[in-house]
Amino acid sequence: MSAESRPELRIGVAGLGTVGVGVLKLLEANGGLLAQRCGRQLRVTAVSARDRNRERGVDVSQATWYDSAEAMASDNAVDVVVELIGGEDGPAKALVEAAIANGKSVVTANKALIARHGNALARAAEDKGVNLSFEAAVAGGIPIVKVLRESFAGNRLSRIYGILNGTCNFILTQMEENAAEFDEVLAEAQRLGYAEADPSFDVDGVDAAHKLAILASVSFGRPVDFDSVHIEGIRQVSALDIAYAKELGYRIKLLGIAGLTDHGVEQRVHPCMVPENSPIAHVAGVYNAVVVEGDFVGQAVFEGQGAGAGPTASAVVGDLADIARGQRVPPFGVASDSFQTLPAAPMPRHRGPYYLRLKVLDQPGVMADISAILRDHAVSIESVLQRGRSPDDAVSVIMTMHETEEAAMTAALSGIKNLSAVLEPPCMIRIEHF
Amino acid sequence: MSAESRPELRIGVAGLGTVGVGVLKLLEANGGLLAQRCGRQLRVTAVSARDRNRERGVDVSQATWYDSAEAMASDNAVDVVVELIGGEDGPAKALVEAAIANGKSVVTANKALIARHGNALARAAEDKGVNLSFEAAVAGGIPIVKVLRESFAGNRLSRIYGILNGTCNFILTQMEENAAEFDEVLAEAQRLGYAEADPSFDVDGVDAAHKLAILASVSFGRPVDFDSVHIEGIRQVSALDIAYAKELGYRIKLLGIAGLTDHGVEQRVHPCMVPENSPIAHVAGVYNAVVVEGDFVGQAVFEGQGAGAGPTASAVVGDLADIARGQRVPPFGVASDSFQTLPAAPMPRHRGPYYLRLKVLDQPGVMADISAILRDHAVSIESVLQRGRSPDDAVSVIMTMHETEEAAMTAALSGIKNLSAVLEPPCMIRIEHF
Repeated sequence: MSAESRPELRIGVAGLGTVGVGVLKLLEANGGLLAQRCGRQLRVTAVSARDRNRERGVDVSQATWYDSAEAMASDNAVDVVVELIGGEDGPAKALVEAAIANGKSVVTANKALIARHGNALARAAEDKGVNLSFEAAVAGGIPIVKVLRESFAGNRLSRIYGILNGTCNFILTQMEENAAEFDEVLAEAQRLGYAEADPSFDVDGVDAAHKLAILASVSFGRPVDFDSVHIEGIRQVSALDIAYAKELGYRIKLLGIAGLTDHGVEQRVHPCMVPENSPIAHVAGVYNAVVVEGDFVGQAVFEGQGAGAGPTASAVVGDLADIARGQRVPPFGVASDSFQTLPAAPMPRHRGPYYLRLKVLDQPGVMADISAILRDHAVSIESVLQRGRSPDDAVSVIMTMHETEEAAMTAALSGIKNLSAVLEPPCMIRIEHF
Repeated sequence: MSAESRPELRIGVAGLGTVGVGVLKLLEANGGLLAQRCGRQLRVTAVSARDRNRERGVDVSQATWYDSAEAMASDNAVDVVVELIGGEDGPAKALVEAAIANGKSVVTANKALIARHGNALARAAEDKGVNLSFEAAVAGGIPIVKVLRESFAGNRLSRIYGILNGTCNFILTQMEENAAEFDEVLAEAQRLGYAEADPSFDVDGVDAAHKLAILASVSFGRPVDFDSVHIEGIRQVSALDIAYAKELGYRIKLLGIAGLTDHGVEQRVHPCMVPENSPIAHVAGVYNAVVVEGDFVGQAVFEGQGAGAGPTASAVVGDLADIARGQRVPPFGVASDSFQTLPAAPMPRHRGPYYLRLKVLDQPGVMADISAILRDHAVSIESVLQRGRSPDDAVSVIMTMHETEEAAMTAALSGIKNLSAVLEPPCMIRIEHF
């Protein structure tokens, strides 16, 4: 078991951005420790990036340089390829496919790639008998993929949900703390580097949806099914909603939720009101959290940094340690030919309670009209909140609904929207009682 | 990779109490799922318990019955032994030693056994090339052993701490919620089955110390060192301290803390005041929580049920899944011959802030005497709280101290205790700023 008795694991790293450099720094800083833990050395023998001359603060002079990442996949001095290029197609996909085809294991932090092409890549990796590992693709600081695939292997999972996008959580936390609106907080987040110049990938929920699709596949043993994820972002959340949520005993979080329902596996990403005493309500700033519910383990909660060079590098190297130790499980926890054939639950069949905020003219009959529409769609009102009456002025009406079906709520909303006394499109936020 | 292509994993279960029956029920309920995930069947081929005729609600008629657990270790139809007998010596130890000697892997939930004899057992398992797995020994619902050993393999850990005993956490939570004293809450916990008839193992901190010693070994790559754990239980915590803690912005939790200090690895179990906004402060009732701090991953928090048949069975079967999949890492994360030679930090060298509650006569000069003793030991007062003056009556004085050395605090306390105006032994609780 000594570190010298087994040949070194030779690693090719493609993509030397923040995360790639983080991986190199980790391997440099903790290489001795890793060798003790894995019983062999881990060594970077090849690297690839766009600009060879950029100063990165790490020494890659001992590694073979590739201008083309894909060429690395043919290097006989590389046992495992670490793909940190990003993007669901293009050079990242070409590299991963070529590496697997050449019998090399792959570690990637690329959630888009796995969410979009994970099934084909997993099947290829299984056929070749190599690892395809993507712990770093989902909530880097939380080792949730391994936990689902290995630690909780004895459980039938019923639900998994979490805060999967640190940028959105940072923005919502700031909006709450400063009673600020989305646009101003987004601008601040961009200034601080917590949000990209083009923030749509994060704030529109796509990034969280990629991660949720991966988690759902590993949790429920079915093919990754990104196209079935219902996705809404946080642009529509207003400071007013956050304030009303607080008054009602909730906080607003962008959650990804996947669960077994009577209609199949539901996967949805959208702003949620969560009870302020639930563990997930307290997860602030750029932290991620994941909650897992299984039939034997009960509820387990995991919290950690979702992104950043350190946590992501930690996840990449955890996967490398598995490979160095000769550990391999199917990428999604079960072999592709053992996947379940559970259908995707359609969003209109979702059931839950709802929050509704309406801007209405304060005139006789408005509440009667709204209530009648809700009644006609069998939507049952739980509470109504209206403050300050000023006849013929606009007032906010806040309503919460008992559990109802999404389709009924959608139909009622289009009726309400058309009332002449309703001045702007209703704001609807789903309530989750964990 | 199909479930039929590899021979079944044959399991012997020794000990059919709550957890043993839980394991059998899990294997029965989720056997098909497990076979899909592991690529082979898991089957119980042998069982052992004291009373063959007890009705347990599970069918063990297909398994070979052993009155002597140790005899199971020689059964050629058993590949892996699950030890759920308990106790640090006696039949549990004999069984585990015999199983390893016979080349069988072992899964155990026995924290006392691993805390006391883990080093010798790990070495034996490594020599034989078998697994020795004990995820179920520490916080059953939290897969912390695997996370430390595998997922966080790339990190140099600086500290690990947590709520490791559900009974103590339940008692402290109840004391806080009902402003009740230890004795009455303990009696209630015993009535509810959350505390044993002889509660000393839990409430005196021994159980948490066993778990901490195991976590410290896996975190810092040194031999398990139970004898160096500083252990205090919760019997001395009063409702008064809990109320004052709240006033100061803290909650009282029994924590196990292991960390790297200038003096080596410190391991301590004792009641702590933790900031009420720290994640660990919100872990209530029978839940456990573990916080890990690493140089790349940053801080990660894990929360789940600590004990009970379901979570413990989940952990046992997670370990069995590893064995079924042919995964093996050294029991403590590094091979025994690669352990670090870090010394154990002596408790008198511990540094931190302190809370002190004194019952004193309300007469002139008392505060001057106390302050002088603290000054003489270079202990710096942060705050003093004294309410309601009633000359010559007993009053409570609450003090908090800036960070100081445990040895200085201990010396000051013995001086203060001897003052004639100090009416009972001072109550000291360490403050932790996470």
